[in-house]
Amino acid sequence: MLDAPTILDESRYSHCIAACNACAATCDFCAAACLREPDPRHMAKCIALDMDCADICRLAAATMARESPHVNYVCELCARICESCAQECISHAADHCQDCAEACKRCASLCRDMIA
Amino acid sequence: MLDAPTILDESRYSHCIAACNACAATCDFCAAACLREPDPRHMAKCIALDMDCADICRLAAATMARESPHVNYVCELCARICESCAQECISHAADHCQDCAEACKRCASLCRDMIA
Amino acid sequence: MLDAPTILDESRYSHCIAACNACAATCDFCAAACLREPDPRHMAKCIALDMDCADICRLAAATMARESPHVNYVCELCARICESCAQECISHAADHCQDCAEACKRCASLCRDMIA
Amino acid sequence: MLDAPTILDESRYSHCIAACNACAATCDFCAAACLREPDPRHMAKCIALDMDCADICRLAAATMARESPHVNYVCELCARICESCAQECISHAADHCQDCAEACKRCASLCRDMIA
Repeated sequence: MLDAPTILDESRYSHCIAACNACAATCDFCAAACLREPDPRHMAKCIALDMDCADICRLAAATMARESPHVNYVCELCARICESCAQECISHAADHCQDCAEACKRCASLCRDMIA
Repeated sequence: MLDAPTILDESRYSHCIAACNACAATCDFCAAACLREPDPRHMAKCIALDMDCADICRLAAATMARESPHVNYVCELCARICESCAQECISHAADHCQDCAEACKRCASLCRDMIA
Repeated sequence: MLDAPTILDESRYSHCIAACNACAATCDFCAAACLREPDPRHMAKCIALDMDCADICRLAAATMARESPHVNYVCELCARICESCAQECISHAADHCQDCAEACKRCASLCRDMIA
Repeated sequence: MLDAPTILDESRYSHCIAACNACAATCDFCAAACLREPDPRHMAKCIALDMDCADICRLAAATMARESPHVNYVCELCARICESCAQECISHAADHCQDCAEACKRCASLCRDMIA
């Protein structure tokens, strides 16, 4: 345990948790939308990275909300995976991919700020 | 797949996803805060229900973001578990428990509205 | 809390937890393998159901390991989603799909036995 | 995607996935058992680390089953968190803690072997 805020809103992690949750939902949505594209073959890498990114974002959010001693390691990995997902998503024209790239970049940025 | 919004913000599930994510984080935070209480023995049931509730909220958020055909079943279970967690949390005076009870009630309510 | 075995091996849930974990891994593997198929368009529904199934199996395993009071509701939903995934997977000839259908059927069966 | 085994049993990751799943279940069980101890105050750190460890083990299992390109980073973090949980658990006499320490050490060891 790092410290003891009495409600979540007072946690130093509130904004980063929100960014992780937003990114997880956007990645899940993007994966499902990619699967509905006329030719999902070109989206296979995007779908796979979306799954990885959604999972690590959920883990990072939980880890921060629990004020875990491992929070920096988890958020560093989260930033890395978000950056990799953003890089893939940005190369696809679909709105859901562009939207996902934005959410990933924002989440990576807040994770990196939080660790710094 | 139920339909095809092009970005998550247009999804019928946006508000319910946000409530599930907020509830998950509040439950995780409450569990960790309960563990730091001077006598966590009285919080044992609360901690256990917080864990269940955080997990089903994360699952419900992911299921909605993916527009899964199973979304109604998952959200019904989410509402049930949120209600059970709210009932326990409301009986504890700590701010983190009262805050958690509110988040659980709100999440249960949005899940029930969404299914209806 | 339902009862108090002193180690997990003595838990009434051990076999069902193992089946859930095996099913989750098989679904995750199947989803990734479907994405590598020459035409993943025909596998889109399978991939989406694999994701749902892996997630509920992981939740069911955790819920049982924690001896949660919600275990029956979670395992009933797990059985339902496993059956839906098995039904889709069995219609595809690929080894990973046939293997996944078997794991889903076995997991659904153990979940139903456990609840009964 | 790293390679293409046709069924999960042929995956290079099978044993490590099994160890991660076993460790997750043992940690979840240990957390719940610690909460039932007469004085859970002394178990607070153990419970918190159990939660972190169960979550990263589930993520590592999923990441390997999906043959993700991020598998090494995730498994390295998994090994680190398992080692930290083992170190705490081993200091408690309860069977569930000793059992958990063993599962954590085994999982950490397989994750490290897999990365090497």
